[in-house]
Amino acid sequence: MSKAAKSPAAQRTILGAIDADVLQFTVGKDPILNLELTEWDCIGTAAHVTTLTAMDYTPAVMTPANRDAVIAALVNIMADARQGNFEITIADQDVHLAVERRLTQTLGELGRRVHTGRSRNDQVAIDLRLHGREHLLGLIIETADLATALLRFARKYAKVPMVGRTHLQPAMPSSIGLWASAYAEALLDDLLTVEAAYTYNDRSPLGSAAGYGVPLPLDRNLTAHLLGFSAPHHNVFYASNARGKCESIILGALSQIMLTLSRFAEDLILYSMPEFGYFILPPEVCTGSSIMPQKYNPDVLELIRAKTARLLGHSTAACAIVKGLSGGYNRDLQETKELYLEGITTTRASLRILSKMTATLAINPTALRHAFTPGVFATDRALELVAGGMPFRDAYQHVRANLNELHNANPDTAIAAKTGLGNTAGLDFP
Amino acid sequence: MSKAAKSPAAQRTILGAIDADVLQFTVGKDPILNLELTEWDCIGTAAHVTTLTAMDYTPAVMTPANRDAVIAALVNIMADARQGNFEITIADQDVHLAVERRLTQTLGELGRRVHTGRSRNDQVAIDLRLHGREHLLGLIIETADLATALLRFARKYAKVPMVGRTHLQPAMPSSIGLWASAYAEALLDDLLTVEAAYTYNDRSPLGSAAGYGVPLPLDRNLTAHLLGFSAPHHNVFYASNARGKCESIILGALSQIMLTLSRFAEDLILYSMPEFGYFILPPEVCTGSSIMPQKYNPDVLELIRAKTARLLGHSTAACAIVKGLSGGYNRDLQETKELYLEGITTTRASLRILSKMTATLAINPTALRHAFTPGVFATDRALELVAGGMPFRDAYQHVRANLNELHNANPDTAIAAKTGLGNTAGLDFP
Amino acid sequence: MSKAAKSPAAQRTILGAIDADVLQFTVGKDPILNLELTEWDCIGTAAHVTTLTAMDYTPAVMTPANRDAVIAALVNIMADARQGNFEITIADQDVHLAVERRLTQTLGELGRRVHTGRSRNDQVAIDLRLHGREHLLGLIIETADLATALLRFARKYAKVPMVGRTHLQPAMPSSIGLWASAYAEALLDDLLTVEAAYTYNDRSPLGSAAGYGVPLPLDRNLTAHLLGFSAPHHNVFYASNARGKCESIILGALSQIMLTLSRFAEDLILYSMPEFGYFILPPEVCTGSSIMPQKYNPDVLELIRAKTARLLGHSTAACAIVKGLSGGYNRDLQETKELYLEGITTTRASLRILSKMTATLAINPTALRHAFTPGVFATDRALELVAGGMPFRDAYQHVRANLNELHNANPDTAIAAKTGLGNTAGLDFP
Amino acid sequence: MSKAAKSPAAQRTILGAIDADVLQFTVGKDPILNLELTEWDCIGTAAHVTTLTAMDYTPAVMTPANRDAVIAALVNIMADARQGNFEITIADQDVHLAVERRLTQTLGELGRRVHTGRSRNDQVAIDLRLHGREHLLGLIIETADLATALLRFARKYAKVPMVGRTHLQPAMPSSIGLWASAYAEALLDDLLTVEAAYTYNDRSPLGSAAGYGVPLPLDRNLTAHLLGFSAPHHNVFYASNARGKCESIILGALSQIMLTLSRFAEDLILYSMPEFGYFILPPEVCTGSSIMPQKYNPDVLELIRAKTARLLGHSTAACAIVKGLSGGYNRDLQETKELYLEGITTTRASLRILSKMTATLAINPTALRHAFTPGVFATDRALELVAGGMPFRDAYQHVRANLNELHNANPDTAIAAKTGLGNTAGLDFP
Repeated sequence: MSKAAKSPAAQRTILGAIDADVLQFTVGKDPILNLELTEWDCIGTAAHVTTLTAMDYTPAVMTPANRDAVIAALVNIMADARQGNFEITIADQDVHLAVERRLTQTLGELGRRVHTGRSRNDQVAIDLRLHGREHLLGLIIETADLATALLRFARKYAKVPMVGRTHLQPAMPSSIGLWASAYAEALLDDLLTVEAAYTYNDRSPLGSAAGYGVPLPLDRNLTAHLLGFSAPHHNVFYASNARGKCESIILGALSQIMLTLSRFAEDLILYSMPEFGYFILPPEVCTGSSIMPQKYNPDVLELIRAKTARLLGHSTAACAIVKGLSGGYNRDLQETKELYLEGITTTRASLRILSKMTATLAINPTALRHAFTPGVFATDRALELVAGGMPFRDAYQHVRANLNELHNANPDTAIAAKTGLGNTAGLDFP
Repeated sequence: MSKAAKSPAAQRTILGAIDADVLQFTVGKDPILNLELTEWDCIGTAAHVTTLTAMDYTPAVMTPANRDAVIAALVNIMADARQGNFEITIADQDVHLAVERRLTQTLGELGRRVHTGRSRNDQVAIDLRLHGREHLLGLIIETADLATALLRFARKYAKVPMVGRTHLQPAMPSSIGLWASAYAEALLDDLLTVEAAYTYNDRSPLGSAAGYGVPLPLDRNLTAHLLGFSAPHHNVFYASNARGKCESIILGALSQIMLTLSRFAEDLILYSMPEFGYFILPPEVCTGSSIMPQKYNPDVLELIRAKTARLLGHSTAACAIVKGLSGGYNRDLQETKELYLEGITTTRASLRILSKMTATLAINPTALRHAFTPGVFATDRALELVAGGMPFRDAYQHVRANLNELHNANPDTAIAAKTGLGNTAGLDFP
Repeated sequence: MSKAAKSPAAQRTILGAIDADVLQFTVGKDPILNLELTEWDCIGTAAHVTTLTAMDYTPAVMTPANRDAVIAALVNIMADARQGNFEITIADQDVHLAVERRLTQTLGELGRRVHTGRSRNDQVAIDLRLHGREHLLGLIIETADLATALLRFARKYAKVPMVGRTHLQPAMPSSIGLWASAYAEALLDDLLTVEAAYTYNDRSPLGSAAGYGVPLPLDRNLTAHLLGFSAPHHNVFYASNARGKCESIILGALSQIMLTLSRFAEDLILYSMPEFGYFILPPEVCTGSSIMPQKYNPDVLELIRAKTARLLGHSTAACAIVKGLSGGYNRDLQETKELYLEGITTTRASLRILSKMTATLAINPTALRHAFTPGVFATDRALELVAGGMPFRDAYQHVRANLNELHNANPDTAIAAKTGLGNTAGLDFP
Repeated sequence: MSKAAKSPAAQRTILGAIDADVLQFTVGKDPILNLELTEWDCIGTAAHVTTLTAMDYTPAVMTPANRDAVIAALVNIMADARQGNFEITIADQDVHLAVERRLTQTLGELGRRVHTGRSRNDQVAIDLRLHGREHLLGLIIETADLATALLRFARKYAKVPMVGRTHLQPAMPSSIGLWASAYAEALLDDLLTVEAAYTYNDRSPLGSAAGYGVPLPLDRNLTAHLLGFSAPHHNVFYASNARGKCESIILGALSQIMLTLSRFAEDLILYSMPEFGYFILPPEVCTGSSIMPQKYNPDVLELIRAKTARLLGHSTAACAIVKGLSGGYNRDLQETKELYLEGITTTRASLRILSKMTATLAINPTALRHAFTPGVFATDRALELVAGGMPFRDAYQHVRANLNELHNANPDTAIAAKTGLGNTAGLDFP
């Protein structure tokens, strides 16, 4: 310590002197990343001081008047943060100590009382949970918006035939309605994992302190209630260990949404190639080339694919951070924050841009119908033979051996004939 | 085709001649892997023929007597499979065509009717869903078993002090009760993602055929009901696209359980080192060295860590397979099967072996108490000063500057003093 | 120990009694996986006993006659292994103890001398290095074979025009020659990482024992020389830590080859769709559908894509196993073996099957030429204007604003005009 | 287009009007990320205009005087960029068009000539290669620096005993010299993969244009020579496809370095716990706790572990982006840029901070010697019996059955006795 204090390279912080390079390395991007958490940090602190005030303690650690003064100061910080006037310095290390510094500058001794009975682990955990709750709700809305846009598109073109493919080869008669509404249903099902992540996230870790609680009569239920969580995590050691897990569970859920978007994007990329021409992307949602004058490229859709890969990377990294970590807080977990923040921002932006693209998407029914080659009707033909009494495998072999007998049937008739649940003519749009 | 038939390297299959190398490459491990699905394939086929029988069709594709004959033959196949007497050949390619071949050998023309209105995609999808339902339920039970073992351990040693650590450095007073019950709570919370995976899995894809339905009045609700699913997937194209997604969602949930197990295993590895000696692993659950006579190594626990990494690999691979795949079935998805099967087997085995180890785990209370150094009580001391009216940050600075004043307090007293919800003395075991 | 010996569930092994479930869990698939290493294990042991014999020790740990007897017995084991007559039992745990058991059964006391001065870590490390050397050389040959097949294809169709694409949209004139030879060059460059992996692998870890050497005058250079390695790893602790790293470096190199194959496969999948029809895959290298009679699907190519994803999973898992592991052998590393073995088998099989497919690949020059739309010539047109003195950006804007002026130029002329190094007419096939 | 031009949300760019949301989504972080490439972009452009000037063309596309004017303007841009006075706007999209805009503002028509015969793909590829060359060389130096620091440490404490461990359990006598120099050797071997990445990177893609070359007599060898590359990639289509591959190969190499660092960090974390006390981290390279006054935590080392996980995520993402992408440029590849830039920055910072920590690292020889328990000498004892003529396996069983006979031997003697190559007494420091 004394040596560090003398070293020209050591920098003073609230918690002691730290070598400047070490400080830089450990703080990393937090002065920027944490800005997104400032508001939540203030709200979490407001709840904490309220809980401190509720302790039956003499002398009071925090009086009701103290609490009100702190909350008033927090409101000012939030207002400043919203206007970009709140700064986190390297010496602050993070938003938590930056807020404490500001409170101490404003409130003096009272500011030095605020951290009673909690740790920064506690704080960042609660900040992320509050952030997660808001953003997962936003994500759910945006997912529903895209599903709605897809269903609107599906209904609009419900009866337009489209070649169904497997292995990318022409397979059987399908429709735009079937194609588009499939992605809507996929997104709604993806919300199952989002919901699980939301529920996991919706528990308050506050009161865990450094993961081992404190010998103070903090009412953890009160804090959870004040912040609108369904409950606190029970075990305080678990509450601390849930850091990283919560982020990786959320990233896993986001990855599932992105996987669905990536398949939708791939279909649009493929079938807007001129050789298909099924879909028409308006020029203004495409980007050009610096060398090729004729180009209108589906960059948005390609980026959706790539960002899906990046979400996988984020998810992999978060899991690999948590794997085999000894119990209790380890600084490794700090690195899950950026992964989480980037993941949620990327996924939400992807949903919004695809809603916009879906709304502007046009189709070319002529090109869609033109793509029906005789082979597409082979299965229907085999099932006709079945209806006449032939065993299916015999009908299959017959058609396979006589592909040249297949004539181009009518695509519209073919998709109208499949009336079963969830088939081209059984989609039952409300 | 004719050229292929002449080639000495081409091999005949039910669906045509295929180059022997290509057949080998595409079939891969399926003749082995699919054996695990044989029973489920037969059950799925029994439901399918029942649905075929229920079609109001003249002439009937399948009469009630036909159906009963097929089901009787399927029962025989299942019995053979259970006794290891059912073989899938390379020429069969997979269990589906192997069962169809067997039915055709037994039932003649009737066997050739069974595949009416469905595809192998349909079948493998339903087989995996049935398999998944059984195994996820088994997994949930085994997770609860381990949580129970942990809680039993936690209650037994609820009041034994243990140094709580952050950054692996001694931090604050904790207890065996807090430590062990934290992992129990973690596992129960992990079931949130397992439950979402179960719900996703619990929908019947049957009737999707190749992903575009069929022009037959197949009652998809009936099939779903017969097989005990909560409902069919609605859109048949989506039902087909859910392949791979379902597997990756399950793998994601399994990864979360493994992540929890890996942290528990890490703690046991660390704290059974002689320098700690907190935990005693019986010699018979350890393995020796071929060169070092004195060794009893915690191999099980190390493998838990490694298998967690492998689950991440499985999950990554499954997601990377699905990412950017065009809509509709693509053969890529076959590769998710092995990932899924291995993932669930590994996770279940990991849970069971850790339940066993937890049941045999002993502790050394002397070593645990011995580890309490004065620094562990520093926060408690600072909070004592707070109770006397000093602002926390001042108390913190005072203690930090006077670490040599700290005396070894009593660990038992320290953990008894933390009575808040989920603290060492607030665990509220029932 | 005594308790374990009494337990009905404990199983005896050479190294002590182990609980049967624990033994099963820790041994895992090794009795099967290790069979692939039996021959290498015998060779490694032959070198080891030769080195023991070379020690100047009285009494001799191993005499020349002893050595010859051991090597003769090893030769018998290798012969048995080749004929499938060598078994590794669960109680053996692995090939190393199985070979030691067999040697002891055959040679009595002499068998019990063989393990002097080495550990199983040593053995598995050397087995994998020997295996890796053989298989990486095989892989390099197969990579060169595929590059040769691609170059043969490229030269054969060097002057057949093909639409070059970016963002999958038609971009500029290209050729089959440019397309195919690009993948050949890519593969040859991928060998840079394979070569690095080969060099890493080509060092002998033998003599590391458990990672800390032994107080015996073992000549590690001799062992390395006998086994044909370029040198031993110097530091014995590093030699042990290189386990897992070597596997992950190899998997990384294999992944790069697979990434190249996956892009080649994707092109073939896309451009053999009937809407393009550039490539014709013979029916016998395709597989059919169980429901759709008309289908010939490019399953091999789809599986190449999926197996690329699996390699990524393998690579991720191997790295995640190694990450943050404390120095020295940890059992976690056992799990890298299966990843490595599967990875190399998959990659080699993928190379071989694509060599075969490339050799059978046909093209449709009419379809290829037919695909040239006027836009493909837009850049050439702009550069014509540049040749006339117009600044490029002006030419670009002019063409972009007047796309309707573009006429279909001659594809053959266009690709013949690009004579620069590595351009369509500058490929300089030898 | 016309519709887009009218839309209030459409934004004008050099290449046409783009919807503002689409522009925002596609441009992403490039206005920030690309700043790191500005200097390289200017240098690449200088080489390109030199090559344009060398074309034997009438009228000249670029005269020597033109070239000199462009290069002078580029020098100004570089100077501005170094002083933070160069801005990339959203409408610019990227550094390439920003530089072109600036050149056009300065040079008028001449600026509009600069892009002749190249595309942005070309440019970003060359920028990244130039950046990669500089940074990989920097990385190699920093790796060598850390290896040097480790060797200095190893030599300084070459004869200080340290318990060697496997499975984290005490295994055999080792030394600080063996431990530290092992990590040095590991780093030097990791440079094998870095070297392969460097060689891959050291080829010029310039002249590929959009991946299909141009009908201009551009001397690609000249450009490569001017920029100091060993050669151009030959095939222009391959040159384009190498994008993403190059980044993923580099990330793979970086991951290997990080894996080594993560194991070194783990050892330091473990053995600086007070229960071991082998290593002493100076307080100023540790960070404190906001709640626990006594804490000095090894945050740097924990972050090294976490950043290793992040590199795995980066590497996974880059590979997943490339996997299965159709040939030719796809916008997906843009996303590999951030992965690459972050990866190289993180790895270099990690190397530097560990060099610093290694230089400040102290040890506690008393604690190190104190840790030698009798079991650590068991293998040495067995080998003593072997020296007396007993077969090793018998000696092993004898010692195992009589562990209580083991007495604490002398650690210093034990490590001095292992004189073999790369053993504790055979490290042969120069």
